[in-house]
Amino acid sequence: MKYFAGIDIGGTNTTLGIIDENGGVVETYQFSTKSYATPEKFVDDVGNKLIELRNSFHIEGVGIGAPNGNYYTGCIEFAPNLPWKGKIALSVLFTQKTGLICKVTNDANAAAVGEMKFGGAMGMKNFIMVTLGTGVGSGIIVDGNIVLGHDGFAGELGHIIVLPGGRNCGCGRKGCLETYCSAGGIKKTYLEISGKELDPGQKIDHLAELASAGDKNALATFAKTGEILGLALANVSALTSPEAIFLFGGPLHCGEFLIDPIENFFTKNLLSIYAGKIKILTSQLPMNHAAILGAASLVKEPH
Amino acid sequence: MKYFAGIDIGGTNTTLGIIDENGGVVETYQFSTKSYATPEKFVDDVGNKLIELRNSFHIEGVGIGAPNGNYYTGCIEFAPNLPWKGKIALSVLFTQKTGLICKVTNDANAAAVGEMKFGGAMGMKNFIMVTLGTGVGSGIIVDGNIVLGHDGFAGELGHIIVLPGGRNCGCGRKGCLETYCSAGGIKKTYLEISGKELDPGQKIDHLAELASAGDKNALATFAKTGEILGLALANVSALTSPEAIFLFGGPLHCGEFLIDPIENFFTKNLLSIYAGKIKILTSQLPMNHAAILGAASLVKEPH
Repeated sequence: MKYFAGIDIGGTNTTLGIIDENGGVVETYQFSTKSYATPEKFVDDVGNKLIELRNSFHIEGVGIGAPNGNYYTGCIEFAPNLPWKGKIALSVLFTQKTGLICKVTNDANAAAVGEMKFGGAMGMKNFIMVTLGTGVGSGIIVDGNIVLGHDGFAGELGHIIVLPGGRNCGCGRKGCLETYCSAGGIKKTYLEISGKELDPGQKIDHLAELASAGDKNALATFAKTGEILGLALANVSALTSPEAIFLFGGPLHCGEFLIDPIENFFTKNLLSIYAGKIKILTSQLPMNHAAILGAASLVKEPH
Repeated sequence: MKYFAGIDIGGTNTTLGIIDENGGVVETYQFSTKSYATPEKFVDDVGNKLIELRNSFHIEGVGIGAPNGNYYTGCIEFAPNLPWKGKIALSVLFTQKTGLICKVTNDANAAAVGEMKFGGAMGMKNFIMVTLGTGVGSGIIVDGNIVLGHDGFAGELGHIIVLPGGRNCGCGRKGCLETYCSAGGIKKTYLEISGKELDPGQKIDHLAELASAGDKNALATFAKTGEILGLALANVSALTSPEAIFLFGGPLHCGEFLIDPIENFFTKNLLSIYAGKIKILTSQLPMNHAAILGAASLVKEPH
């Protein structure tokens, strides 16, 4: 059996997975991205684990999904949500450390490919994967291929400006979608509406518990989030006319409290020619597996 | 020499062109779209001209660019800016009338293909064509192909909602980009700012004459148009990361009065990772030829 390593680098955590050639996730390991002051130390630790795993698995290559990961250059370039600044030659660092070939792409692109090859988007040629978490990302699939764009940085849905002059964004501008629809953005909306801050340790799921108990502020927070994200998804649909939009990430644990308002505002704002044609779906891969499966598929098959 | 017919159907006028295999436009004819009560009468007149032209040219096929033209079905489907309602099987009607094979696509898509094959986008693989006129349209090129989407209706840039609750749009919703940046939308902005209506016969170019004479209301109109369109183009760039955005259509006759504010607000709103990478350009094909060249290329080469 052949195996592939898939690495999903998030702002908070990194997951390393070993994937078999049938898409089975056979092992996963967690690393705390935030705790590594330099990418070299990060590659050293993750690389040592990979070298150890090669004793058990015939690993063919390493695929990485990372914020601002660039398929063309193999670098992470100026990622606002990572502790490492500037341009990081990740594929070179991993190949030097492990001797394995290594491909890099945007973490949301990797999730989209994972969904297409192993999840709910199997058989679909045109869809959009929207990842909600520390930030908001997207992978846009057109005619069965990831849209990379001229410079490799397509799919930055989180950085469309939805409210000019709105909330400050980590990218240095104001009013980006991710300032409202990331986990932190949703919490901030709750703070603005209720005047109460969630405890730092509390996950976004807590808002669903509050809503479930009839908390009007929590319900209003979901309504506001759905209003902003539903409109943004209707606007994106007018550009690439997808068959479906998949939602993925921690905030989806809030279930219908989050999804229903998104769907309602999406439907309300959708151009009539698309009415009834575009499905809003949730990822059908285990939360931590879409990205590593997608990342691994970068080296499993020619891109 | 082989020849191809390209037909550009606009809300106001239709252009029929005969294109040689080198992309030369050898003859063009104008028809008043608005004056045809039914698509059958329209096809009858345009088809008769095609039949007449076949005495002089060996025409291989007919390509059509039309609002809401669908490459997959060969139909115009529910176009808000045309006199004909519902779903019109244009390719079937033309083939029945002339015996020629016929392909249909969105008029803006056709313009994009024309720009790529014969204009300023030659050699580019990722760009966006934005058409300003009776409406606002777009053709999005990714990896050298037009993005058609799941249902054939991708590229409806004019119908992204830029101001929720804003101006009434022909599509039945409010605040669409085209209500602000079409020729009529720009005129409306001038009316709102100045309290004065342009004479019905006056083209949008007149605003450039006023601006040139120092008219503050005309200058403010261009600034407002640039603010809205510049932001929209920055947002679209974050999705497909193009090498260039081409602007095309009547309002471009206003030259730098229109283009400078678009560029300024585009640059101001662009995510920093794209800074300096995306050119704002004007179409390098004669105004009426981009669309007919693009339409003709639908039958010249396999799509």
